[in-house]
Amino acid sequence: MTEFPTQIGTSTEDSIQLLGNDLAQDLLGKISFGELAFWLVARRRPTEAELRVFEAVLVALTDHGFTPTAIAARMTLYSAPESLQGAIAAGLLGAGSRFLGVTEDTATFLAEGLDGAGATASWSQADWDELAVRVVTKSLTEHRRIPGLGHPVHKIADPRTEVLIGLSRDNGTHGPHLALLQAIGRVHPGLLDRTLPINGAGAAGAALADLGLPTRMLRGFAILARTAGLLGHLAEEQETPVAPAIYRLVDRNAVYTGVDTDTGE
Amino acid sequence: MTEFPTQIGTSTEDSIQLLGNDLAQDLLGKISFGELAFWLVARRRPTEAELRVFEAVLVALTDHGFTPTAIAARMTLYSAPESLQGAIAAGLLGAGSRFLGVTEDTATFLAEGLDGAGATASWSQADWDELAVRVVTKSLTEHRRIPGLGHPVHKIADPRTEVLIGLSRDNGTHGPHLALLQAIGRVHPGLLDRTLPINGAGAAGAALADLGLPTRMLRGFAILARTAGLLGHLAEEQETPVAPAIYRLVDRNAVYTGVDTDTGE
Amino acid sequence: MTEFPTQIGTSTEDSIQLLGNDLAQDLLGKISFGELAFWLVARRRPTEAELRVFEAVLVALTDHGFTPTAIAARMTLYSAPESLQGAIAAGLLGAGSRFLGVTEDTATFLAEGLDGAGATASWSQADWDELAVRVVTKSLTEHRRIPGLGHPVHKIADPRTEVLIGLSRDNGTHGPHLALLQAIGRVHPGLLDRTLPINGAGAAGAALADLGLPTRMLRGFAILARTAGLLGHLAEEQETPVAPAIYRLVDRNAVYTGVDTDTGE
Amino acid sequence: MTEFPTQIGTSTEDSIQLLGNDLAQDLLGKISFGELAFWLVARRRPTEAELRVFEAVLVALTDHGFTPTAIAARMTLYSAPESLQGAIAAGLLGAGSRFLGVTEDTATFLAEGLDGAGATASWSQADWDELAVRVVTKSLTEHRRIPGLGHPVHKIADPRTEVLIGLSRDNGTHGPHLALLQAIGRVHPGLLDRTLPINGAGAAGAALADLGLPTRMLRGFAILARTAGLLGHLAEEQETPVAPAIYRLVDRNAVYTGVDTDTGE
Repeated sequence: MTEFPTQIGTSTEDSIQLLGNDLAQDLLGKISFGELAFWLVARRRPTEAELRVFEAVLVALTDHGFTPTAIAARMTLYSAPESLQGAIAAGLLGAGSRFLGVTEDTATFLAEGLDGAGATASWSQADWDELAVRVVTKSLTEHRRIPGLGHPVHKIADPRTEVLIGLSRDNGTHGPHLALLQAIGRVHPGLLDRTLPINGAGAAGAALADLGLPTRMLRGFAILARTAGLLGHLAEEQETPVAPAIYRLVDRNAVYTGVDTDTGE
Repeated sequence: MTEFPTQIGTSTEDSIQLLGNDLAQDLLGKISFGELAFWLVARRRPTEAELRVFEAVLVALTDHGFTPTAIAARMTLYSAPESLQGAIAAGLLGAGSRFLGVTEDTATFLAEGLDGAGATASWSQADWDELAVRVVTKSLTEHRRIPGLGHPVHKIADPRTEVLIGLSRDNGTHGPHLALLQAIGRVHPGLLDRTLPINGAGAAGAALADLGLPTRMLRGFAILARTAGLLGHLAEEQETPVAPAIYRLVDRNAVYTGVDTDTGE
Repeated sequence: MTEFPTQIGTSTEDSIQLLGNDLAQDLLGKISFGELAFWLVARRRPTEAELRVFEAVLVALTDHGFTPTAIAARMTLYSAPESLQGAIAAGLLGAGSRFLGVTEDTATFLAEGLDGAGATASWSQADWDELAVRVVTKSLTEHRRIPGLGHPVHKIADPRTEVLIGLSRDNGTHGPHLALLQAIGRVHPGLLDRTLPINGAGAAGAALADLGLPTRMLRGFAILARTAGLLGHLAEEQETPVAPAIYRLVDRNAVYTGVDTDTGE
Repeated sequence: MTEFPTQIGTSTEDSIQLLGNDLAQDLLGKISFGELAFWLVARRRPTEAELRVFEAVLVALTDHGFTPTAIAARMTLYSAPESLQGAIAAGLLGAGSRFLGVTEDTATFLAEGLDGAGATASWSQADWDELAVRVVTKSLTEHRRIPGLGHPVHKIADPRTEVLIGLSRDNGTHGPHLALLQAIGRVHPGLLDRTLPINGAGAAGAALADLGLPTRMLRGFAILARTAGLLGHLAEEQETPVAPAIYRLVDRNAVYTGVDTDTGE
């Protein structure tokens, strides 16, 4: 018979095991929800210092006002008010390359840049800048965008970036991903034709990667954070809806450009 | 011009406002992710005692092993490994009446039972039991299921229930919803033909309702918790997949019963 | 060993069976996609007359311009352009009670009204009107909305309604559901305080129910039709996007009403 | 004021315009659902010959038995039976690279191979084979998979492939994409270390591309077809469910390998 192994959890008639612990006796009331989320993905419990940085990153990624994902979730609640899960799912489905993928893309980009570079804890700022120049130059040659740089609203500085870097430093989790990202922030103006801020989503990705979390799951933390943000939007939509007004606005300003394109036989 | 009011958040070029606070200066590193989730929905900051109960409820609802929602998420990651958001959304779409809706359904049921009952903090256990008898009897008459009772695995007692009740009591948040649910737990064996445990999802719903959170958003907290659980499942699936084996098992044991049903002209 | 029975389909190394037929030899090039969709759900092949009505109903339900579901799909494609399936899923998740559920809700409502009424093919218009009066009166007493009546845009008459009724009549599929719906259309002005048109989604639901399709799957046909409509919207969005403009419009007209609601300790 | 242009459709109080036609008068009962789907995406009406090939492709892609997407949809219906749209969306979210993306990936691959190759209608089989050798060799050099080749079940020949090619030829829509795919089918055994069949999804993609449909929307047609397949699965699941048995099987054969991984302070 096929067996299905899992390290996550299981239940017996009188207990629930989660990650090697008794859920009711060992975890309820003893760990925060954020700590459990870290543990489930990393398959190890975070230190207190790591947890502080991790919770800060989640808080940083939770909400950004009327994003396309928030609008999609609100429109869906308007259409199907009885299905809160559908509205949340619709919002999360926008967690793709353009809006919510930056966190993971930045971490992946930095990990590739660090791969084989031989960076150590004793590297000087000049060492990091040298690596950053190589990484940025390579991207330019390959016509690839550098994730983590630039923001449509925060054109000079994303207010989250410095705070996340500071928290990582204060808690001793600042590592090579953030170091390389900061170096890219220093060297890119001389290589590109403009100066861009390090955005908060990118700093968040680097901070999570420095916590040792797996790169390909980082988008997942952005999604977890955004789920809380969407709950806020949908609670507000239930009380003071804006979706009907958005719908009317779009519908009334639709300009129909259809023409008879009949080319059939 | 139409305006779109929101209390949640907004951005300017150099700051992000969230719930009346400066995200970077006032919130990052200063509140937990769980606290922010509470705040976003309740539109008020929880007390420390409320937050302890709230985080415990989220932890209680996070994961239950290979549930149908976890299986759906893993099958979807197998089909579309490049779209983590799609796998999470597929898992959350199972947050309906049967598996994840119990939390909200129980709270709604209890709120209806409390409506007009005139319960006060000075009610004795006998008072609560009397109300519970009325509520259970009414459900029986209307052939409605009593949500919050019974569990497919924990047939005697759900290990989370007593712990959540205890935490609510210790933190001073124990209120009428939990009181009525416990009374239903006491009186139902005499009215139904069997004794059922109060399940953890139901206790979670009552505990959240006693925190003053809006009933129709409670399913949302179960969804938030389950998002973290799904992250755990999907991180594990990326490393040690079980979806291919589930697929093969189902496909190989499929018995095709199709017959030529052609009745067309 | 558990077996998983299915009538739908199965594959062997050199053939694919679908609904009791060889897919490649018997179906490809020989039936339309609409016919296959009917067959899969009804588990019987439609007659040519039934198929004409069925395809017309799908065409009637395909698109309505910039609906909330189309807007949600377009916003999601904007956020995650690499995941077309996510954008379609987001759009379909709005297929709930308010926008796409009318088809199924109307059929369910009519089926309840017909249940036990003893309607026969020989009923006169007066018989139908008498039943309709009972059904509408019962709804009024129970404060239930009558699905299938009224439309936000087509306030006098929904142009699809008469055509669908005519097609059902011409093809011999007109039955009790459409008869009752038309009678409701005749009698309701004397019972409600206003005259409402029979909407196209309601007529579509009645027409499908008269084809003998299972009531609880009718929403599914609205979803299938809308999938094609969403493909049209998303193809257009890929070429001439409107989502960025909708996003900017909402974001720029957001009015932040957040206040410091800190009540924590 | 921002305007939102669209060619798809619009409504006035007494008419619905779709693609430059009056929906009720010009389309209902006069075109098939498949024809409307083609028209919406291509923004032109197909010829009768094109439509025959297009409908055959949709039929070919509709269902494959208990695929991961069908399992995900059924598990979701089991968890949330009240939300048919959620179950369909969950199923469609598996329309990614591994299971439903082959159609689009093959067309994209072929289009890249054709780009700049100067193929004309007068090319001989030897010309096509020469191009196919270049295309396959380039893929091997770049360690890229060749989409459209190979199938987990149909190891010798996918029964749909020859029929789709024949229909394209008979209807005069056979063009360079199918020609190149067939040439790849002929030359690859000498370049790879094995002989693989051209799969039906790949042939479908090539046939759609030869109809002039936009490459980046081809996944959408696979999704539309699969929506009908999922309706069949969910109608069957409502009557004779298999999801509970799948769930029990997985749950009972779960092997918990969790260990105390506590490394926290």
